[in-house]
Amino acid sequence: MNTQTPLINEERLQETIEDFADFGRTKNGGVTRLALSEEDINARAHFKALCEGSGMTVKWDDMGNMYARLDGLENNRPPLVIGSHLDSVEKGGKFDGTLGVVAGLEIVRTLRENDITPRIPIVVMNVTNEEGARFEPSMMSSGVLSGWFDKSEIMQSKDAQGTSFAEALRNSGYEGSEENRLKEAQCFLELHIEQGPVLENEHLSIGVVEAVMGMVCYQFEVTGISNHAGTTPMKYRKDALFATNNLITEMRQEMDKLDESLVYTVGRMNLTPNIHTVIPNKVIFTLEARHQDMEIIRQVEKIIQSLQNTQEKDGCHIKADKLWGRKTVRFDKDCINLIEESAEKMGYSYKRMVSGAGHDAQFMAANMPTSMIFVPSKNGISHSEEEFTSTEDLVKGVNVLLQATISLIK
Amino acid sequence: MNTQTPLINEERLQETIEDFADFGRTKNGGVTRLALSEEDINARAHFKALCEGSGMTVKWDDMGNMYARLDGLENNRPPLVIGSHLDSVEKGGKFDGTLGVVAGLEIVRTLRENDITPRIPIVVMNVTNEEGARFEPSMMSSGVLSGWFDKSEIMQSKDAQGTSFAEALRNSGYEGSEENRLKEAQCFLELHIEQGPVLENEHLSIGVVEAVMGMVCYQFEVTGISNHAGTTPMKYRKDALFATNNLITEMRQEMDKLDESLVYTVGRMNLTPNIHTVIPNKVIFTLEARHQDMEIIRQVEKIIQSLQNTQEKDGCHIKADKLWGRKTVRFDKDCINLIEESAEKMGYSYKRMVSGAGHDAQFMAANMPTSMIFVPSKNGISHSEEEFTSTEDLVKGVNVLLQATISLIK
Repeated sequence: MNTQTPLINEERLQETIEDFADFGRTKNGGVTRLALSEEDINARAHFKALCEGSGMTVKWDDMGNMYARLDGLENNRPPLVIGSHLDSVEKGGKFDGTLGVVAGLEIVRTLRENDITPRIPIVVMNVTNEEGARFEPSMMSSGVLSGWFDKSEIMQSKDAQGTSFAEALRNSGYEGSEENRLKEAQCFLELHIEQGPVLENEHLSIGVVEAVMGMVCYQFEVTGISNHAGTTPMKYRKDALFATNNLITEMRQEMDKLDESLVYTVGRMNLTPNIHTVIPNKVIFTLEARHQDMEIIRQVEKIIQSLQNTQEKDGCHIKADKLWGRKTVRFDKDCINLIEESAEKMGYSYKRMVSGAGHDAQFMAANMPTSMIFVPSKNGISHSEEEFTSTEDLVKGVNVLLQATISLIK
Repeated sequence: MNTQTPLINEERLQETIEDFADFGRTKNGGVTRLALSEEDINARAHFKALCEGSGMTVKWDDMGNMYARLDGLENNRPPLVIGSHLDSVEKGGKFDGTLGVVAGLEIVRTLRENDITPRIPIVVMNVTNEEGARFEPSMMSSGVLSGWFDKSEIMQSKDAQGTSFAEALRNSGYEGSEENRLKEAQCFLELHIEQGPVLENEHLSIGVVEAVMGMVCYQFEVTGISNHAGTTPMKYRKDALFATNNLITEMRQEMDKLDESLVYTVGRMNLTPNIHTVIPNKVIFTLEARHQDMEIIRQVEKIIQSLQNTQEKDGCHIKADKLWGRKTVRFDKDCINLIEESAEKMGYSYKRMVSGAGHDAQFMAANMPTSMIFVPSKNGISHSEEEFTSTEDLVKGVNVLLQATISLIK
């Protein structure tokens, strides 16, 4: 490691993360900080105060996205943007999102205490409602910035209590001007926990993220006939659950032939009438599949369509509807190389990898060069109070981001 | 057909069934007449009035079971009992249970109009809460009579509103004396719809029921680990749903080797957390299996135990708990033969068969010679507003019962 390289302050980083975790801390050490809730509004105020205390000016746009800006020597040039989100899911962890925001602040603090004035401005960004836990969809605000989502539709999204996003945003005090939206950047960098087990299992410290996987999600409806479980001989049954069982087995066999990095999941399944003495007449389930190569995703869709076209399975009718899909987002080559070089320079173990989870970075990539840095998640767990990343790994992640920053602002 | 044989009155039978269907008739032509509900209490009063109008005396016991007795020439001898139940499930059909009670009344009416005085008394019985739809368990009152259920526990069974069976029985006005319980009978005969598709599919009119199948019901709990559906490579997953899928497939393969008349059902299945983007960490499902030969049932249990003993499947833990089981109840040979001879005498097509559904007759069989008669159920449907049996088939069923009665009371 180059000992002349400035390093971030481990204690200050830890302390700042813990301070943010106080906004919505749960009994079991997790965080519930739904977007634009009281906890989120308090966290935003804290973020604003800390940034202003570090010489930054803070603005927000019409989606409530917050931008803390540190001026550089050449303030007409597009900024380096470091960002992620402060909102959490219900009983989530304290690093998911928060790490990427606090990292930006820690980098600014480190630059200032090392008397480094950046050539270009640095913006630390807090994106509104990444999780989609209170208002669907997830990544709604970066999605509006990228043009993927229609703002007027997003504004009507309602939480479980019937409050619209527009109303919550207005009441939060963080409804700013559309003019304040981030329009261009030298680079957008997001540091995030991996939310998967790969780095931990391969004993690596840093993930250099090249892309966010494309995906499809289908909903299947298998319709049979309900009858009494005791009086109906097997040969007369049209059992929607057994048909589903065979269908899933066949799809798995076909999908397993495609590529070992394909991931697919049947996460949701509901039986009707769901009574132990009645043969199910309907099973509704989801199948989602993700891969970086959209050709593999197309082959998954072919498998689904070929099975659907048989129409009848074990006497049951099969219907498969595509709920949604998204293409693989490939990050900027220069940004990816920069992060790789930074990890190399720091002497940390790393690998190039693809994100299976969605992140704001995938939408930011529509308008500016973008990449991400991953740090390990213990047992791959996230969206849970059990989410954990060691301080050592957190520090390494922020130091890689610091190195990348220094290279960009020189 | 022997034309000298008295026949029941088709029109009167139909009319009486329709009259009872008015107590709780649903918009779609079904019946909702939960045990001891206002509808059931009104149906009981109607039953009492009709029986008294046909020269019978009506009593009820401490479980609310009603007994309408037509005296015979030798009143100290055990009666012939014809019975079933007047309660229904929510949105059930008009024949399930009611047919067996109305049949008894129709037979008494037919005997009287043919000036036939029975040698032994005839009792038409209405058993309380066969369905278990309002108060669990089903067949509770015949079960108490047989000693299978403990009366004090049954009395505490509560409906969804928190009303106990004891309270509902007291308020109904049909809480009678324990002395009135049916203790012995020449024979207990129950005419019922098949609730299965066998007679219809084989174009037969009458089922001569030899036994009620034994069964076991297990609840499986498959425990894996929840993780993000996008970030967790397949090789690191402990997916409780895919483990369940493989488990069910293996059990089906093994069970299909046992006997073609074995029936088994996975009727209930619940995933946790049941979210399309999360790998399920838990699947709980039931497997129930029925067969007349308890040795086959024991083999099913061996299959379950051998799979459970592997403990781990696809990285997931398997736990299987027996929820309950019941042994096959074999009906009385003389009663079975009597019904077969009666069907033969009437010239109706019939087969000997085994009931996969539970009936009061299976508990009555503990104390007296018992058998059942089945008539076809269209598409095997019951416990539904779509339940249907043609008038022709209904009439044939009651005529077989009449023949059996005449043979017994001669």
